[in-house]
Amino acid sequence: MRSEQNVTAVKRRIAAAHGDVAGDVLLKNAKVVNVFNGLVEDKDILLCGDCIAGLGQYDTAETIVDLAGAFVIPGLIDSHVHIESSFLIPEEFGRAVLSRGTTAVIADPHEIANVMGTEGLDFMVENSRRTALDIFFMVPSSVPSTSMETSGAVLNSNAIAEILRKHPRCLGLGEVMNAPGVIFGDDEVLNKLSVADGKLLDGHYPLGSGRDLMAYCAAGIASDHESVSREEAAEKLALGIMIQIREGTSAKNLETLLPLVNDDNWPNFCFCADDIHAGDILDGGDVLGAVAKAVALGMDPVRAVQLATLNPARHYRLAYRGAVAPGYLADFVVVDNLETFPLRMVYKNGRMITGKETASPVRLGQITLPQTVPPFPQIQTGQTARVIKVFPTEIITEERLYTAEAFMEHRDLQKMMVMERHGVNGNVSYALAEGFGLQKGCIAQTVAHDSHNLIAIAADEKEFSFAAKVLEEIGGGIAVTCGGKVLAKLELPVAGLMTWESAAVVAEKEAALNRAARHLGVTLPRPFMTLSFLALPVIPKLKLTDMGLFDVEQFDFVPLFF
Amino acid sequence: MRSEQNVTAVKRRIAAAHGDVAGDVLLKNAKVVNVFNGLVEDKDILLCGDCIAGLGQYDTAETIVDLAGAFVIPGLIDSHVHIESSFLIPEEFGRAVLSRGTTAVIADPHEIANVMGTEGLDFMVENSRRTALDIFFMVPSSVPSTSMETSGAVLNSNAIAEILRKHPRCLGLGEVMNAPGVIFGDDEVLNKLSVADGKLLDGHYPLGSGRDLMAYCAAGIASDHESVSREEAAEKLALGIMIQIREGTSAKNLETLLPLVNDDNWPNFCFCADDIHAGDILDGGDVLGAVAKAVALGMDPVRAVQLATLNPARHYRLAYRGAVAPGYLADFVVVDNLETFPLRMVYKNGRMITGKETASPVRLGQITLPQTVPPFPQIQTGQTARVIKVFPTEIITEERLYTAEAFMEHRDLQKMMVMERHGVNGNVSYALAEGFGLQKGCIAQTVAHDSHNLIAIAADEKEFSFAAKVLEEIGGGIAVTCGGKVLAKLELPVAGLMTWESAAVVAEKEAALNRAARHLGVTLPRPFMTLSFLALPVIPKLKLTDMGLFDVEQFDFVPLFF
Repeated sequence: MRSEQNVTAVKRRIAAAHGDVAGDVLLKNAKVVNVFNGLVEDKDILLCGDCIAGLGQYDTAETIVDLAGAFVIPGLIDSHVHIESSFLIPEEFGRAVLSRGTTAVIADPHEIANVMGTEGLDFMVENSRRTALDIFFMVPSSVPSTSMETSGAVLNSNAIAEILRKHPRCLGLGEVMNAPGVIFGDDEVLNKLSVADGKLLDGHYPLGSGRDLMAYCAAGIASDHESVSREEAAEKLALGIMIQIREGTSAKNLETLLPLVNDDNWPNFCFCADDIHAGDILDGGDVLGAVAKAVALGMDPVRAVQLATLNPARHYRLAYRGAVAPGYLADFVVVDNLETFPLRMVYKNGRMITGKETASPVRLGQITLPQTVPPFPQIQTGQTARVIKVFPTEIITEERLYTAEAFMEHRDLQKMMVMERHGVNGNVSYALAEGFGLQKGCIAQTVAHDSHNLIAIAADEKEFSFAAKVLEEIGGGIAVTCGGKVLAKLELPVAGLMTWESAAVVAEKEAALNRAARHLGVTLPRPFMTLSFLALPVIPKLKLTDMGLFDVEQFDFVPLFF
Repeated sequence: MRSEQNVTAVKRRIAAAHGDVAGDVLLKNAKVVNVFNGLVEDKDILLCGDCIAGLGQYDTAETIVDLAGAFVIPGLIDSHVHIESSFLIPEEFGRAVLSRGTTAVIADPHEIANVMGTEGLDFMVENSRRTALDIFFMVPSSVPSTSMETSGAVLNSNAIAEILRKHPRCLGLGEVMNAPGVIFGDDEVLNKLSVADGKLLDGHYPLGSGRDLMAYCAAGIASDHESVSREEAAEKLALGIMIQIREGTSAKNLETLLPLVNDDNWPNFCFCADDIHAGDILDGGDVLGAVAKAVALGMDPVRAVQLATLNPARHYRLAYRGAVAPGYLADFVVVDNLETFPLRMVYKNGRMITGKETASPVRLGQITLPQTVPPFPQIQTGQTARVIKVFPTEIITEERLYTAEAFMEHRDLQKMMVMERHGVNGNVSYALAEGFGLQKGCIAQTVAHDSHNLIAIAADEKEFSFAAKVLEEIGGGIAVTCGGKVLAKLELPVAGLMTWESAAVVAEKEAALNRAARHLGVTLPRPFMTLSFLALPVIPKLKLTDMGLFDVEQFDFVPLFF
């Protein structure tokens, strides 16, 4: 990360700062955003090794670049992101976000941990060494997320303690999603907090409020990225929670939360993507887009940069990061202005990012599907069908009830399947969905929060077996099939969650998947993301896990037909 | 420090926050200064164990205290202090500052390290466990301070590495005073920085500026308490230096530096005492006084509190300190208003400070003086005498030159002696001082920065031997003697620097010393402090170490008569 801290390198940096020896790179005529004093200063920036040596008036270096008055801001920091959600492995994710100005991220490898446990985390940490991006990790606290589904792994407090010991890049405990477990003092949840004592504890508490939130904070949890209203964020802020303003692919909270930031509280805000698609990284950037949007919404540009750099660096105790200053890592972004932040260059560890790295093919884990699959249940006259109603831009669902007659005549009903894919118990469960628009063929994927079993919808249940076989063959991923043909697919051979291909390729394949889905009649704007949340039994109302149809409000499994 | 982090204690705290069980102490009707959002909020504060459980509306607890609208601010943090300068051992220093609202300090045990090395540090760390005050340490980087004097110990980079490994309370490297050593890449100085890599590096760079300051910062040094002008502090701030505004017994920089603090840069400022006498702690407080003064000078009271609490907690990565919030240590101060901050109560670790602790007598080290003492040199006709001119409120000196005739007639000249007291080499050296006013008797002390040899002034050199014998007998300290009688003394049997007595007793004895000094004709307001800096060969112009008379500007020893 900050590699060159040996005495020889430090001595050379000091001498370069002092003007006694030439530095490596000199960027002349920069307008540097100073996050310490809030000013924009005309400076030259002298680099030596992987760090900044000096700011001011310098003349000699191996390489001299004239920035001609362009603005320089510190490398951006994404304070909370699930790399897996981009479908990219860490080294390709690194390449993508570095190209958009992000030089450090706090990653929560919660998805791969649910599939592959410690082995998955080891892969993420090891693979993160192959990118210049500084990837720090929080150890997932909630694996499995619930007991209502079959995950590929369990991370108990002992395993978490061991990972924290083993990997210095792990800064603490990842988002604690089991708020009731905290509030009612579940021993294993508290053991997880305890083994991370002295390190950072990340939170995740949507709609947390009142005594419940107070109890959650009393446990020492110090950050949260789930605020969707100003009141919610204000209540959390008052209790010392670092507010991570989320601007991801789906969840966008910046416009709502921005007016809360003022002169007295701004150190307690930062940005995060949480979940972001490869295409969105390339289009806007995981943090750069948020900074530009904050400025468009009226925030002072220097303050927007402070939120994106110094604040998360201090919260996560990332030494010598988050500022353009002597002794700091030479991580910064050159932009043409501070209104729309048009990106010109990115430096990481003193080197300009060229985008020339290439990831090596990786295959990790395999998809192990059941040998035998039960028949799809048939509705009987006089029975009522329970259907999952989905909506275009929400991850909550509703329950719809139909008589057998209404059911037979319904034009927008899809058969739905979840198939355990970790080789644990061969569970297969079925349900019905409404609202996708799909009229023929099948959509199947191994990305299904949080246990990431195989989930599929089809117009006809006969389509399921072919689609599942396709996914098994490619090692997991997303497939759109019809009548025994593959219309589009995205191979995700890394735990069935990620590919080693580039963000650009992934973005193209995602576009092809969307076109194929529309060809099948799909009307939802983001059908694959909507589908990926239909197995998550913690968000109302009806969800399907490999164990069956789950009513989140009753907190129990319910029959499909009754 | 934050002791009760076992699962049982956390579970109880969470349950108390949630209202499921009674807490230990409930402070009703507080006006709580919230350092996160900058507001003053009407809240009850519920304590459980050593932490705050909840804020809001609570009704039950073992003990209920009605604050009736008094203000509650977080426990104050002194970001840089030399405990030895108070003459108090850590447990008594703790009692004194706790009684004035300080609940955590970052201590640099630079004085005792110069006398006793690692053994002295071990004592400070061990003794600090006997006070509720959270004492964190920075390992002294500059022992000895210079090669122009004889110290009792040397701390090299290996010793520093070992101390950092051994004591988790040591957060990093103490103020790096050898700025030229950094700037010109002295290997041993860089080794010291290197062994502390990943921890905090404190700075001390008076008048640091330009390329020199840039080189100093390029080494990674991150704080400084030596700014005496606004321009100096602004230059350091721009480079990412945490500005520690000093308000000690002598150095007072708040009034000058305060106008620099604004809405964009305030997280980069905190307070420190650096050196403070026991009496000043009891009169004003090491940080509370600074907060009240900042408000009197026009700073918003909540911001003044932020500088004194949240800012140093974040800089020094002190988890769960610096705020009144759930999960945080129950360290706070009850004051009657936010203008003058009249102190009503202090809580530390959930318990009200009562001042009933008593320190146990401690003796550490001994004073080892030379067996034989050379005669005081006599001026010859035609020679010139070189005299150290002292000033009432400054620690710089000037050089005065007198002919033998003028010398004989001078009414305010004192003989001066420095005697090596660590048993190393028995050095004794002499000089002449002007400006103390002393007309008879002798002042002698074992407090003399930074090597803390025995230093004395007398009207007649015959007084020296008695005064030195007194100090040897009491194990070091300060004595005012005259004609073989002790007029006043302060025993400092702990390394010749500190006493185990209370701040009140020390303040009384200091007053008696001052009265005795005035009885001898002394006109200087703080003669003992002035004397304590006369052996420090890094501040202009003339100083006397055990090795001889040193001209700081020539950077060489010079003769007394020539």
